[in-house]
Amino acid sequence: MTISMYAASVPVFKQMLGGLSAVLRKAEAHAAERKIDPNALLQARLYPDMFPLLRQVQVAADFAKSVSARLAGVDVPRMEDSELTFADLQARIAKTLAFIGGLAAADIDVASDRQVMTQAGTPKEKIFTGQSYLLNYGLPHFFFHVTTAYDILRHNGVEIGKKDYVGTY
Amino acid sequence: MTISMYAASVPVFKQMLGGLSAVLRKAEAHAAERKIDPNALLQARLYPDMFPLLRQVQVAADFAKSVSARLAGVDVPRMEDSELTFADLQARIAKTLAFIGGLAAADIDVASDRQVMTQAGTPKEKIFTGQSYLLNYGLPHFFFHVTTAYDILRHNGVEIGKKDYVGTY
Repeated sequence: MTISMYAASVPVFKQMLGGLSAVLRKAEAHAAERKIDPNALLQARLYPDMFPLLRQVQVAADFAKSVSARLAGVDVPRMEDSELTFADLQARIAKTLAFIGGLAAADIDVASDRQVMTQAGTPKEKIFTGQSYLLNYGLPHFFFHVTTAYDILRHNGVEIGKKDYVGTY
Repeated sequence: MTISMYAASVPVFKQMLGGLSAVLRKAEAHAAERKIDPNALLQARLYPDMFPLLRQVQVAADFAKSVSARLAGVDVPRMEDSELTFADLQARIAKTLAFIGGLAAADIDVASDRQVMTQAGTPKEKIFTGQSYLLNYGLPHFFFHVTTAYDILRHNGVEIGKKDYVGTY
């Protein structure tokens, strides 16, 4: 009657990244139909010191990747933040999905008590249990960036809805 | 090495509602300091057919309340959506925190296989297991509204940060 660490991590990331991918496809189509420069959306932000759409997507993918990797006890794969286009962002999401899809559920399921360190070697260094790292830190940050990417696009008039956001499961 | 249903629900809602409460306190102070009509923030939205801040907070509180109640197998308490001010929203959050704080962890811990029905009697009626209801539906929707409330305030220049959003845990 409990939840496995795997069920609360990788499938949730897959679901939401799938939704984010669909949202971005609609945004790209929206720009093409209306002859809008894709960068008008990719570089859009809700406030000058917030990340633009492109960076929100990179960071969302980063949280999915790094949280899953740390829980599985494997190295976090390095991905260059070299994306410039919607196609690049789709590739980044696909690469992230392939990575987390390749992690062994059994490795993550033993992670609830695994010690996870974030921002190691910096003044913000913090040690979590695997469970707290996922529930109190990883999921809140991941959902933040997925939602903010969606909010940026809604704010710019792209016709997407909650159903797109929430993905399929 | 597994997670309890309780750990993945009530404490996460508490953490994030605490963060939302802090964010709203900063927003109220921001308006007072600058002699901004509080309604300029409370009624702000990111797009004409999106909910304004006030409604985003009500819906976030609703998800915390209804997901927790359904998992615990108790009736979802009715709360009138009569809030008009920042103080009203703080009271709504406090009432929600008191309700979910009063649920027995043991009742929620047995909920992973409990059948949960949403939108009963409507064409959108859907049956979930407790686990799927929480992970694939409840948390994504809850985080959506908490984040969008934050995004509306950031978009309006309120000085809040990720640290406020993520609350204390």
